Amino acid sequence: MSEMRRAFIVSDRTGISADAMCNALLEQFKDIPIRQYSRPFIDTPTKAQDLIMEIQSFAEKDGVHPIVFASISNQEISQIVKTAPALHLSFFDAFLTPLEQELGATAQRIIQSRVHNVQKYDARMEAVNFALNHDDGSSDADMQQADVILMGVSRSGKTPTCLYLALQYGIRAANYPLTPDDLGNPDLPRMVKPYKNKLFGLTIEPERLHNIREERRANSTYSHINTCKQEVADAQTMFRRYGIPFANTTHKSVEELAVYIMQSCKLKKKF
Amino acid sequence: MSEMRRAFIVSDRTGISADAMCNALLEQFKDIPIRQYSRPFIDTPTKAQDLIMEIQSFAEKDGVHPIVFASISNQEISQIVKTAPALHLSFFDAFLTPLEQELGATAQRIIQSRVHNVQKYDARMEAVNFALNHDDGSSDADMQQADVILMGVSRSGKTPTCLYLALQYGIRAANYPLTPDDLGNPDLPRMVKPYKNKLFGLTIEPERLHNIREERRANSTYSHINTCKQEVADAQTMFRRYGIPFANTTHKSVEELAVYIMQSCKLKKKF
Repeated sequence: MSEMRRAFIVSDRTGISADAMCNALLEQFKDIPIRQYSRPFIDTPTKAQDLIMEIQSFAEKDGVHPIVFASISNQEISQIVKTAPALHLSFFDAFLTPLEQELGATAQRIIQSRVHNVQKYDARMEAVNFALNHDDGSSDADMQQADVILMGVSRSGKTPTCLYLALQYGIRAANYPLTPDDLGNPDLPRMVKPYKNKLFGLTIEPERLHNIREERRANSTYSHINTCKQEVADAQTMFRRYGIPFANTTHKSVEELAVYIMQSCKLKKKF
Repeated sequence: MSEMRRAFIVSDRTGISADAMCNALLEQFKDIPIRQYSRPFIDTPTKAQDLIMEIQSFAEKDGVHPIVFASISNQEISQIVKTAPALHLSFFDAFLTPLEQELGATAQRIIQSRVHNVQKYDARMEAVNFALNHDDGSSDADMQQADVILMGVSRSGKTPTCLYLALQYGIRAANYPLTPDDLGNPDLPRMVKPYKNKLFGLTIEPERLHNIREERRANSTYSHINTCKQEVADAQTMFRRYGIPFANTTHKSVEELAVYIMQSCKLKKKF
């Protein structure tokens, strides 16, 4: 008998969102050790049968039921997975029935069309290229095509946020690093001045910035806590002076920042 | 009376995964027009009350119940949201009760700790920097630190996949573009040869590659369909000769590719 539980996140697609949602569920039971196994692309009866054998062998070994969190639109596969000896939490089954009743229609139980992927791919590709070409103020060509321009001191988290906005939403996000020169100037930097309404500022706690910069260039003026304090204070002054919306990146994940920027700048997903 | 339905995806966090999961649900009712509204960061009673007013006004205007898909771990907020006139699909409520019974424990209904975000941020930052420094075969410094090296002809989808692997999993992914010179050579390219066991190939349908390259450089030898056919064929020959696992990117989303690569190369998320 083992006290450790196993949870299988089973999907007929990538299972990326199912993983995240299941993780949020299992986090509610912090005192119980639960080991998670992702089982994506379970899209044929054979793969489903193999998975059942795997779950069965774990159930016998552990002496307790594994947990199966299933996100499977295909009904045949879903039925097979349900024969495994486990606690079944089935996303589609739980919500499709009330939806069918409310909408007065039968769920089609289809998998997302592949055509969509090509359009999505193109929008993302374009946005990723835009972000790479406009990383760190590297070019002001086509800057008017930016959906948003992130502005902040060096190492405040601009690049990952721009790339996430591009990949997740197809948003063309440029970024501009506020240099000590920019920060000593009462005016907005020349490169971004024409696009004031597209600007979004990133700020960060000086101590955290100091730690990040130390990793990069230890014991330098650049990473000194006083430099960090001064730059952050100057950047925030600039944001306030020009009414630029901004967010503190210190305790935010890239996802949180991205969603916050989408909301704040009223941006829409491109696909 | 309107036939259009509205669906509100309500979360006390970013709601990114809830959006995706809800989208997969609503796609099962293709014949019914359903307009989706993301309502992230509903994490105070006041925000929940404001949301109820919004839902209520839509319900009155439309003459039908909106759908509320809620992913809210906080019980107080969750209870408030439930008072809105709507069909409620509540992720935590649906699955926490059976989990509590199976695990013999009470769900703590907490929000993910913020400490985790800093570690996650560092792992991602490092991986994103690695991907940017090793994009398009730009440098072989520290190549031994790569978790995986994507290889493929120009425009086969290497860069977005590397960036997604970095952001989603903290994986250090380099990429190497197979040039016509490389493809004419029976040996593996010099830069990647020492890391044969880290290689993963990307291939693509020649017609799709032709279309992508035409966008970039129209009517060129580079984009000509015969060039595309030859390069793709040569790349696949190389992958097969050296036993390099590979995937066709044509009909796959960046997410699908990333999950496939994680599985195929037995890579683990870094945070």
